[in-house]
Amino acid sequence: MLQLPTYDDVSAAARRLHGLAHRTPVLRSATADRLLKAQVFFKCENLQRMGAFKFRGAFNALSQFTSEQRKAGVITFSSGNHAQAIALAARLLGIPATILMPLDAPQAKMEATRGYGGEVITFDRYTQDREALARQLLSDRGLTLIPPYDHPHVIAGQGTAAMELLEDTGPLDVMFVPLGGGGLLSGSALAVRALAPQCKLYGVEPEAGDDGQQSLRKGEIVHIPTPSTLADGAQTQHLGEYTFGVIRRDVQDIVTATDAQLVDAMRFFAERMKLVVEPTGCLGFAAACHAGLPLEGKRVGVMLSGGNVDLARFAQLIGSQGWA
Amino acid sequence: MLQLPTYDDVSAAARRLHGLAHRTPVLRSATADRLLKAQVFFKCENLQRMGAFKFRGAFNALSQFTSEQRKAGVITFSSGNHAQAIALAARLLGIPATILMPLDAPQAKMEATRGYGGEVITFDRYTQDREALARQLLSDRGLTLIPPYDHPHVIAGQGTAAMELLEDTGPLDVMFVPLGGGGLLSGSALAVRALAPQCKLYGVEPEAGDDGQQSLRKGEIVHIPTPSTLADGAQTQHLGEYTFGVIRRDVQDIVTATDAQLVDAMRFFAERMKLVVEPTGCLGFAAACHAGLPLEGKRVGVMLSGGNVDLARFAQLIGSQGWA
Repeated sequence: MLQLPTYDDVSAAARRLHGLAHRTPVLRSATADRLLKAQVFFKCENLQRMGAFKFRGAFNALSQFTSEQRKAGVITFSSGNHAQAIALAARLLGIPATILMPLDAPQAKMEATRGYGGEVITFDRYTQDREALARQLLSDRGLTLIPPYDHPHVIAGQGTAAMELLEDTGPLDVMFVPLGGGGLLSGSALAVRALAPQCKLYGVEPEAGDDGQQSLRKGEIVHIPTPSTLADGAQTQHLGEYTFGVIRRDVQDIVTATDAQLVDAMRFFAERMKLVVEPTGCLGFAAACHAGLPLEGKRVGVMLSGGNVDLARFAQLIGSQGWA
Repeated sequence: MLQLPTYDDVSAAARRLHGLAHRTPVLRSATADRLLKAQVFFKCENLQRMGAFKFRGAFNALSQFTSEQRKAGVITFSSGNHAQAIALAARLLGIPATILMPLDAPQAKMEATRGYGGEVITFDRYTQDREALARQLLSDRGLTLIPPYDHPHVIAGQGTAAMELLEDTGPLDVMFVPLGGGGLLSGSALAVRALAPQCKLYGVEPEAGDDGQQSLRKGEIVHIPTPSTLADGAQTQHLGEYTFGVIRRDVQDIVTATDAQLVDAMRFFAERMKLVVEPTGCLGFAAACHAGLPLEGKRVGVMLSGGNVDLARFAQLIGSQGWA
């Protein structure tokens, strides 16, 4: 039986993060309110350090290392925001960080991770086994693995974003949160359960990667092949044991959004709210607009999870045609 | 002798705007701090209602109309952010708004102004005299003219942005503010003078439109032809009597930025801070990076004045190459 994290863990994470993570703003848009006939509150984790909520969980996990663990260092594998989050949190705490990345990961992401002081070890994903490589480094160097989502300290850290949102807005009726591996959604669920138990919490996945929705329906974790979607932060193949444990208990439902809806939302954020939001970060608003849930007259929270999108790609996506 | 507005007027404007204008966030960037070897505080008026600081001055002016003035309505001429600001403020106050725009103004701007409920009257700028047309409407309809910058109530309203910045950060050593007609800069000067008298305030103009710098050097308002620059919010031909009166008294100096520097700054904001900032809004940070002023170890405020840039144009500018 897993010991699931609790709101007390979220609250403790908030104390650890105080003054280190940004308390990101909650922004409003009269246009969004009009579109949804609701009061909409956007929690802007795209404005978080390193551009995504991931810093919260990474720092919360690393700050609880023992002195032996700190000395030996942390290891993770990720080619996304979690890699940068671990590298940055480790630098702030003086912990050596090793990040396993595929040789063909985007150069920009490798450089960003190195820029935060992480040691990037590349592997050939076609000939080398990532897990075996990580196990070898773990035992050779005595490193501690912090996975991207399925860890109680990571989940508790991610939950501080929804906690801040609810502190700033007071109770909400509905909240939409992007869903990949479930770190952000399960952390949010702990905050919602404690601070706004009447609030209906929806996880939002890319339509092409609806393993979370399938898992909820089936009552067990469903594995899928890596989905093809613009939402690269939600290309996970399955939920984790901890994240699913919280999600099945506390989340109202899981809905999906198409890539076209994500691009529309991305244009809306750039044109009307002057924000750069990555495709994964657009999941919540896309679902609020298109999933057909009753929002009229409601107080609606929307989590913008991050803003890390390659600038040329972003320009291409938003430049193709105006938001209508 | 002009009666220049004072900090008391700014303070009164803040009370009128409370709950109506957004209190925009002040954001930080570790990268910006590292680049400038300073602590940099960005006041995000691109996140203001209608996408620019202009709402502050427009609302402050219109909310002081007498009941006769309210009934008859307001008129202004502008093809930019001031038009939308007047239209929105007028709608909130139930005042009819008439906006004179050239026939060939961007369709999007006309629609946005109409969207806020303003009556747009177009004129042919090659055959019709805008001033004569406005005078005729003024007398025919008894309208009150609120010009885009040279009005004490407009200046006082714009000053609330710098006031909020200083309230949030405490005293700063240096502040950079974009300069077109001088409404934002002179309002900021009133706030700086009262709240942080040691702070050196710099106005920043596009290099191609340095009439403010020339005016400061010469001690009188210099008129120039409409400058050719990406910074369409700073294409003014001259300062106003009120704005120049405050600027010559309270501003440390006026510096300039090139269009290339504005595009670099625009890419920086999109890539590193996840913000859409219009070219004019980039003037302050461009000067902080390139004007050669001593900022090391200083606390530096940078005013981002707005984010209203056509999305296709924005995509084209930021997509052309990465920020280096």
